Amino acid sequence: MGIVRYCAKLEYLGTNYFGWQRQPHSEPTIQTIVQNALSQVAHHPVSVICSGRTDRGVHAKGQIIHFDSSAERTIKNWVDGVNSLLPDDISVQFVHLVDKDFHARYSACERTYQYVILNQLQPSALFANRACHISQPLDIEAMKQASQCLIGTYDFSAFRASGCQAKSPIKTMKNIVIERQENIITFDFKANAYLYHMIRNICGALVAIGQHKHPPEWLSMILQNKNRCLAPPMLPACGLYLTQINYPDIFKIPQ
Amino acid sequence: MGIVRYCAKLEYLGTNYFGWQRQPHSEPTIQTIVQNALSQVAHHPVSVICSGRTDRGVHAKGQIIHFDSSAERTIKNWVDGVNSLLPDDISVQFVHLVDKDFHARYSACERTYQYVILNQLQPSALFANRACHISQPLDIEAMKQASQCLIGTYDFSAFRASGCQAKSPIKTMKNIVIERQENIITFDFKANAYLYHMIRNICGALVAIGQHKHPPEWLSMILQNKNRCLAPPMLPACGLYLTQINYPDIFKIPQ
Repeated sequence: MGIVRYCAKLEYLGTNYFGWQRQPHSEPTIQTIVQNALSQVAHHPVSVICSGRTDRGVHAKGQIIHFDSSAERTIKNWVDGVNSLLPDDISVQFVHLVDKDFHARYSACERTYQYVILNQLQPSALFANRACHISQPLDIEAMKQASQCLIGTYDFSAFRASGCQAKSPIKTMKNIVIERQENIITFDFKANAYLYHMIRNICGALVAIGQHKHPPEWLSMILQNKNRCLAPPMLPACGLYLTQINYPDIFKIPQ
Repeated sequence: MGIVRYCAKLEYLGTNYFGWQRQPHSEPTIQTIVQNALSQVAHHPVSVICSGRTDRGVHAKGQIIHFDSSAERTIKNWVDGVNSLLPDDISVQFVHLVDKDFHARYSACERTYQYVILNQLQPSALFANRACHISQPLDIEAMKQASQCLIGTYDFSAFRASGCQAKSPIKTMKNIVIERQENIITFDFKANAYLYHMIRNICGALVAIGQHKHPPEWLSMILQNKNRCLAPPMLPACGLYLTQINYPDIFKIPQ
């Protein structure tokens, strides 16, 4: 059947890995482990491209990848085969045949990330490495109010970490939803793309506002200033989840 | 101030431990680790009694313990000190001064456990070791209907594992709530006490009904028969959470 292209949806817990991308040395990365499993099922070496590389310790509920293969396998062969080879903390939710034009990274038009804060006095064993623990009370209304200044197309340099390889610091933030359910606060960000550490930097600034270290209007000043040194430290990787990647309908990627 | 008694609420992820109870050899157990942390804070050896021993791999959101100490420590000293010594997967939610009559096990009047099933085709990295994965569809209405025959005071021998040390197989099941939220099915059990492996055995039978291997009425027949050999295999430990222990109001234990 020649070489065909597949996309796949991955879920992973980033805690035990050195991020997505294959490292020069032998540190375990999600890319390496997924490629090894796919290569075993395919019986030929498989390279994988993801929608966006996640950092060390960052998790994913909906990472999308694509890969090419000439192996004659059914969709069920791929999914069951790969899942049987993957460790517990990485899983494939679906494999789907796609057009050769599809590219997991370049075809993506919208990326959703969620940041999770556990807001209670004591740490929680069940949320260890899965949420950022903050003991002090957080004013959720102040954070909601502040976040709205980020909606739109802006130069997000104030929230860009050094080492960022993005060609332009201008991104379009489409939506930010902040919610509290008991002791869990979630921040959902939807944008076309992000700068390096952008969400963890924005969340660091929002938390400073939630702690009343700054008024809500201060975030807009930080954004306009475009100076990373003015913004507070970023929050840790363990609270961040890549939740969803959207593609133009023409590619018919399942949600 | 002499010797006083404290109760404490613990949360833990059971995955990395050989259950609650101290083992004759050196396997890590939750009891050993909690006792070591408390002893370090107290500067004297501390023994701990829990409300109910959890098996290997079983988790807790609300395990209650008591211990005695002559050390002069504030509540904050205890909580912060112990949490700073505990590993990520065990945490203390509160420490509370109690009457000398209070006993974490014998004073308990009601115990709530939750069993969690991930009911979707593929395994999930984020729920690995935290829920029991079942791929086949489950008929939640059939399971709800069947579960109601267990409410009341019965001889639960049909769901009692060998090795059970309970004096009597007669227990009072006060409530069972079965709910589905997207792909997660939760089973909440409230009873005065349980037999060894009782919940995991009951859940195994309910799943067989949910898979239409047996009609809902079959559960009542199993219960009445009192023969463990008739019931299906128990479900794995990873889906089970000790969620809450209730005590008579006179002890003033925080919820």
